[in-house]
Amino acid sequence: MNKIANRVKQIEAMAQKTGFPVYSEGKNPLVRGKIATPRKELQQASPKLVSLEEAIRQSGLKDGMTISFHHHFRSGDKVINMVVDKLAEMGFKHLHLAASSLIDVHEPLIAHIRNGIISRISTSGLRGALGAAISHGLMDEPVIFRSHGGRAAAIANGELHIDVAFLGAPSCDSLGNACGYAQGENVKSICGSLGYAKVDAQYADKVVIITDSLMPYPNTPNSISERDVDFVVEVDSIGDAAKISSGAIRDSKNPRDLLLAQTAAKVVINGGYFQNGFSIQTGTGGASLAVVKFIREKMIEKNIKASFALGGITTHMVKLHEEGLIERLIDVQSFDRGAAESLINNRMHKEVSANEYASALEIGSAVHWLDMVILSALEVDVNFNANVLVGSDGVIRGAIGGHPDTAADAALSIIVCPLLRGRIPCVVDEVTTLITPGTSVDVIVTDYGVAVNPNRPEIAERLKVAHVNVVQIHDLKEKARKIIGDADPLPFGERTVGIVMSRDGSVMDIVRNIKDK
Amino acid sequence: MNKIANRVKQIEAMAQKTGFPVYSEGKNPLVRGKIATPRKELQQASPKLVSLEEAIRQSGLKDGMTISFHHHFRSGDKVINMVVDKLAEMGFKHLHLAASSLIDVHEPLIAHIRNGIISRISTSGLRGALGAAISHGLMDEPVIFRSHGGRAAAIANGELHIDVAFLGAPSCDSLGNACGYAQGENVKSICGSLGYAKVDAQYADKVVIITDSLMPYPNTPNSISERDVDFVVEVDSIGDAAKISSGAIRDSKNPRDLLLAQTAAKVVINGGYFQNGFSIQTGTGGASLAVVKFIREKMIEKNIKASFALGGITTHMVKLHEEGLIERLIDVQSFDRGAAESLINNRMHKEVSANEYASALEIGSAVHWLDMVILSALEVDVNFNANVLVGSDGVIRGAIGGHPDTAADAALSIIVCPLLRGRIPCVVDEVTTLITPGTSVDVIVTDYGVAVNPNRPEIAERLKVAHVNVVQIHDLKEKARKIIGDADPLPFGERTVGIVMSRDGSVMDIVRNIKDK
Repeated sequence: MNKIANRVKQIEAMAQKTGFPVYSEGKNPLVRGKIATPRKELQQASPKLVSLEEAIRQSGLKDGMTISFHHHFRSGDKVINMVVDKLAEMGFKHLHLAASSLIDVHEPLIAHIRNGIISRISTSGLRGALGAAISHGLMDEPVIFRSHGGRAAAIANGELHIDVAFLGAPSCDSLGNACGYAQGENVKSICGSLGYAKVDAQYADKVVIITDSLMPYPNTPNSISERDVDFVVEVDSIGDAAKISSGAIRDSKNPRDLLLAQTAAKVVINGGYFQNGFSIQTGTGGASLAVVKFIREKMIEKNIKASFALGGITTHMVKLHEEGLIERLIDVQSFDRGAAESLINNRMHKEVSANEYASALEIGSAVHWLDMVILSALEVDVNFNANVLVGSDGVIRGAIGGHPDTAADAALSIIVCPLLRGRIPCVVDEVTTLITPGTSVDVIVTDYGVAVNPNRPEIAERLKVAHVNVVQIHDLKEKARKIIGDADPLPFGERTVGIVMSRDGSVMDIVRNIKDK
Repeated sequence: MNKIANRVKQIEAMAQKTGFPVYSEGKNPLVRGKIATPRKELQQASPKLVSLEEAIRQSGLKDGMTISFHHHFRSGDKVINMVVDKLAEMGFKHLHLAASSLIDVHEPLIAHIRNGIISRISTSGLRGALGAAISHGLMDEPVIFRSHGGRAAAIANGELHIDVAFLGAPSCDSLGNACGYAQGENVKSICGSLGYAKVDAQYADKVVIITDSLMPYPNTPNSISERDVDFVVEVDSIGDAAKISSGAIRDSKNPRDLLLAQTAAKVVINGGYFQNGFSIQTGTGGASLAVVKFIREKMIEKNIKASFALGGITTHMVKLHEEGLIERLIDVQSFDRGAAESLINNRMHKEVSANEYASALEIGSAVHWLDMVILSALEVDVNFNANVLVGSDGVIRGAIGGHPDTAADAALSIIVCPLLRGRIPCVVDEVTTLITPGTSVDVIVTDYGVAVNPNRPEIAERLKVAHVNVVQIHDLKEKARKIIGDADPLPFGERTVGIVMSRDGSVMDIVRNIKDK
């Protein structure tokens, strides 16, 4: 008795000394311990598995809060419309919708904006009827546009605080281990990397995974860990599989695209960074996809291997990797089914979050280690500034994406852009909207010659040696003007409908409303 | 001109409205932007790659702070001694060493404790000369012992704050993407899962990865992300490969172990949870390893498949998985080379952090979904309490490990323990040190019969039906006492040399110093 009393005294003394409480069976509600009446069935019931309405209710979502989504399903996405419909039905108002991007399929948001369900939007881009409506003044509050890296950084540093993230996942178990595919299993809606969603999952206050393929626990591998997930909702369909790999991606047979691609390939090969171990990212424009084919030939010929390809990964890149020409793929977004399928079995195909991809705040974000990037643009100007967001008609019809992130950090950034698109000049005096500052852009490849940023004279020299047709950017602009003539000024109004954030979290430009001509 | 002035005014207005600054080229030091004089070589130099001394200096480590380590290299570990030697050389004092566990190879710490370099220790266990020295009163401050789940929870909730983590990694790139193996490459020191290290990497203020295989960027796959890593140190050797898979693991040919295993297998098979989709964890004692073989036969016979095997994963489990008998492996620690190699190529073999494995604070930690666990013990008592830390001589010679975590959460927890070890009784009146409370223990399997916790009468019934020799725990204790006689009381002193924390963060027991007999 004395012995036990003494022991208890010592335990109490140590608890006092260390500041920890004394152990008391079952006192701490966090420790489940043995269940009072042990279950006869196996331990497989998850309290996280609820209906969408239940998840919304339990999440504590309130009017005015911020909800987030990813765009990995691109034109096939059903999640945003499904969730916002439900929120409307439940009577929510004045929500801030923060998506990694919005596209044509999100046209139904127009009605929800009109009805006051959605009052604010943050996104990388807008397309289709939604972009047009917003350009024409649909919203009272300007849309905030951020690059992929800028969005990730803003979420990480708290500038963009997400209250509830609604993240579609092609596979998920009842505890929230979610993935953009499933190992050895067929899922309805494979999308590959969940790179943008990973950021939301990590930083949102509450995370709801919405899946149409509920897997047995544990769903392995997983892009999003159960640790970050509060609710799991099973639905019939989160995306139209046929459209997930569509969107911006197309393979070009346009002869002008091929000419542009061939010229861009020359710039890549002769710009000074085409060495063993180089790294590269290409955009998804027809020309920048075609570049890959030309570079491939030269890599084989010169026995040069790349250390990694970055970004939105396409089947083109997967093929080069499988041929042994690219050591690793770093994938924030799988642009087509081939890329998504490669991610399933190939562990050298690395899925990264948008932070690991392109945040300016992270020393290790992959763009900091990028040697070359090939980008497209809606228009460029004589100061090498680029616009990828607002069309020549003044209507928002694009997305910032990783454009300014990769351009800023790559050692050699190349924009491929025709001089004219139909009757529209693409090399102008001043871009309609500033998305990527000219200080970040090294070379502009057009079908009428290649302009090199005067800050990079050594690049110009190298290209001239390789017989690339190096021209002055002003001459390109003049040529376009001579062919088309001076364009009428766009009928912009005085309202601000969009704010373009720089990747460092500052306001870089604004987009004004457009009036019908 | 007016047009530009107007635009600037609008940008300024929006910046003011949103509270963001106005963009100004290169103003934000976080945005590296283009390097002034572009590098001719590729972008491959990492500022994180430094010497150990430089890493320590830059980490801001100060006297009295907390440093942490993992024990994935077990008896082969060279990292702890290497780092503490360096810290001693650099003149640090009064450090708190928080390791996931400490073993015989860490004997050199004795001198560092004597010299005042290390003043406090937190660990899961102590073995060999270090355990003996501490039991004899080497340290002024008691060692704080936590279970694997308890340590992870304490780190996550800030009770155990780590200032600088020094984490050995068998492969790492210059930015800190670290792994316990490398895909398609030979590394010097493969250890498989880095489950314990993942927690430290996530929560420590500064993280130093120490590697003997520096890989090209990006090292894929990676267990620890560059996002969490501040410094990378390359050294000749972080571990003795031959000893990494040694430690607690041994395959038993002892006939008593096999009898115990056979009985334990009967309990598993007849306890009520041996159904399709069950989950299981086994410890690393000879008997609990041997159980796997017996269960395997019954699984094949009855066509029953397990959903997952959890914990320290062994080659035994890998084989069952490869045979299709276990769907997935959840691996916080690869116990042998076979397990580590399985992790390389098999994506159904899932690496988890200690939080995902066993934290009481996480709804989704795998132990919450565990049906059965088979554990060993140094001693158990008539209240089903278990001790796995302090030997019958009163000397610290074990480790808590995941013992109380898995016992608490599994639907059926089974401890396998001989009645006697030589002249030492293993079923006693009161365990020397309380590690796993009897409320968490359902069945004790001995070579003289099986005792079932009176809280689980339905288990006792099921076992009796299956002709298992169910006995009273008091009878087992009496049998041991009759054979051996009453043991002399241990010569404990009055000083507290160890504090045993419960997994819920409370003080459960203390360990007193032992005097030489």
